[in-house]
Amino acid sequence: MSIKLNLKKDTIDLSHGAGGKAMAMLIDQLFRKCFDNDILAQQSDAAVLSLSAKRIAVSTDTYVISPLFFPGGDIGSLAIHGTVNDVALSGATVRYITVGLVIEEGFPLSDLKRIVESMALAAKLAGVCIVTGDTKVVERGKGDGVFINTTGIGVFDVDVNWQQRPQIGDKIILSGQIGNHGVAVMSKRQNLSFDSKIVSDSAALNGLIAQMRDSGCLIRTMRDPTRGGIAATLNEWAHQFGVGVHIDESNIPVHPTVQSACELLGLDPLNIANEGKLLAIVAAQDAEKLLAVMRQHPLAEQAAMVGEITEDRNHFVSLTTSFGGRRMVQWISGEQLPRIC
Amino acid sequence: MSIKLNLKKDTIDLSHGAGGKAMAMLIDQLFRKCFDNDILAQQSDAAVLSLSAKRIAVSTDTYVISPLFFPGGDIGSLAIHGTVNDVALSGATVRYITVGLVIEEGFPLSDLKRIVESMALAAKLAGVCIVTGDTKVVERGKGDGVFINTTGIGVFDVDVNWQQRPQIGDKIILSGQIGNHGVAVMSKRQNLSFDSKIVSDSAALNGLIAQMRDSGCLIRTMRDPTRGGIAATLNEWAHQFGVGVHIDESNIPVHPTVQSACELLGLDPLNIANEGKLLAIVAAQDAEKLLAVMRQHPLAEQAAMVGEITEDRNHFVSLTTSFGGRRMVQWISGEQLPRIC
Repeated sequence: MSIKLNLKKDTIDLSHGAGGKAMAMLIDQLFRKCFDNDILAQQSDAAVLSLSAKRIAVSTDTYVISPLFFPGGDIGSLAIHGTVNDVALSGATVRYITVGLVIEEGFPLSDLKRIVESMALAAKLAGVCIVTGDTKVVERGKGDGVFINTTGIGVFDVDVNWQQRPQIGDKIILSGQIGNHGVAVMSKRQNLSFDSKIVSDSAALNGLIAQMRDSGCLIRTMRDPTRGGIAATLNEWAHQFGVGVHIDESNIPVHPTVQSACELLGLDPLNIANEGKLLAIVAAQDAEKLLAVMRQHPLAEQAAMVGEITEDRNHFVSLTTSFGGRRMVQWISGEQLPRIC
Repeated sequence: MSIKLNLKKDTIDLSHGAGGKAMAMLIDQLFRKCFDNDILAQQSDAAVLSLSAKRIAVSTDTYVISPLFFPGGDIGSLAIHGTVNDVALSGATVRYITVGLVIEEGFPLSDLKRIVESMALAAKLAGVCIVTGDTKVVERGKGDGVFINTTGIGVFDVDVNWQQRPQIGDKIILSGQIGNHGVAVMSKRQNLSFDSKIVSDSAALNGLIAQMRDSGCLIRTMRDPTRGGIAATLNEWAHQFGVGVHIDESNIPVHPTVQSACELLGLDPLNIANEGKLLAIVAAQDAEKLLAVMRQHPLAEQAAMVGEITEDRNHFVSLTTSFGGRRMVQWISGEQLPRIC
């Protein structure tokens, strides 16, 4: 194909999603260049993958974050990190990612290039391969810049089961500070500035998770507290497993700037989305050991034991406040921060 | 969860995508009910799947069709059919589907229910299992009703390779009438009515493809001519494999109403999207046999041999017209019918 896209000046039009020459050009000159690998080069509608394991894990997420670029990341890196984390948290080794783009007519190709390059870099750093994709274009006013779906596939090369029912007395470990992602996105969205700049914690956790897996500790289950924050994850667990959860506020790491931003805005850090944190339920006897292993990883230096599984027929999540009081941790029903991932 | 969704009257609001209680209710009371299966019931961010094969095929597509409901289908059934077909065309047996929804605020829950039920039925009929999903909600005016990403996974229980380079003289087989999907969608979109009603050909082709696979015929490759129509598929092949393609217009099945609609609207059926058709390249000696096998399947009763692979250093697609003339089959560069799938 001889016509060159002008990646600095051109914008997306409907023809880029119409299955014709313009779409082929976009795929050739942008996606295939950035996501270069043997499987993608098959140029087929389906990618054929060889697997060594008999069990795989699959997870899908569509990213609709606004704004597309925020302190500490962008929709491209987020779309890789989020899905890598969801797969890795099952215990599988993440290998492959598919990408589905919905682009609004008029979107600058220069921004698309930035996003695609960011995805490619995030995939490379996480050790995953983008194997197939799809591009759709919608008319101006029928989308919002770019939405990205990623679906991740991992293989179980080690035989773990992290979908175990927790026991009463099991400990809950959090890998680090909460609220940074939500506050970073909101500060950009609302043009707020704070004393110290808060950046999103968006990161691929598969390296950390592999170290935890290889520690030999008895991990019951793990999850990343994204939308709805750690309050949502803990309430989901309580509901799903039919247990109670008790956490201790003074043990939960929160950056002082996040804390004051939340006070200013009337938000609770427990409800705010994270994109590079995990919560794990671990057997009590292994909790200290797991914590020590985690703290050796750069993404979990501030890991903390934040609570435990309790017996509670109401399946409530309760919290001891920093002042020694006790309150329920609500599972918010409305939205606190829409379009956060 | 005690609060019940009113599936007849409620509409989607931002809370349904916020990771809190409202989202959990939607998942519990609509998705989990419709897509009921053991894997989905794991309630984890990643689905864990057991596989019997060492090779899998993966394909992803986002569906942005407008209108959401059209003669012969809706975005839900289409999102299953399209992805099932892309995976099946690799030669794999399609097993699993993931679903990522982006819903616009204010979308009626009754319409969402219709779409989700349609997906569930299409998946059941195609013999595939919806194993995991994701829901996002965007503000009014930042989306268009519903966009659906589906990613499909198939396993190679029979060892086929349908990514072979075609040979000069290989035959091209088309499974039936072209243009029905595009014309059906357009007639609904523009409120056109024709003498006889044209319905979309949207269908899952995995049954037909399995019969073709089991026929023992030497199939080089297959593809479904969706966006851009058979003109796009044939040009992609010519470009990808470095060959020429020649087709014979009089052998291409076109419904008379589609033909007249195209003439009226200045469109070429060759450029119009299909959602239940396939094109196959087969070794010349097996072409008649394959055609006979295909015609026994209800979705390919009108299958036809439409052309062949030629030697052409320009990698052109040419056509002998019904009147005996000869012309090039253009790979359109702009969009003819946006949002067709």
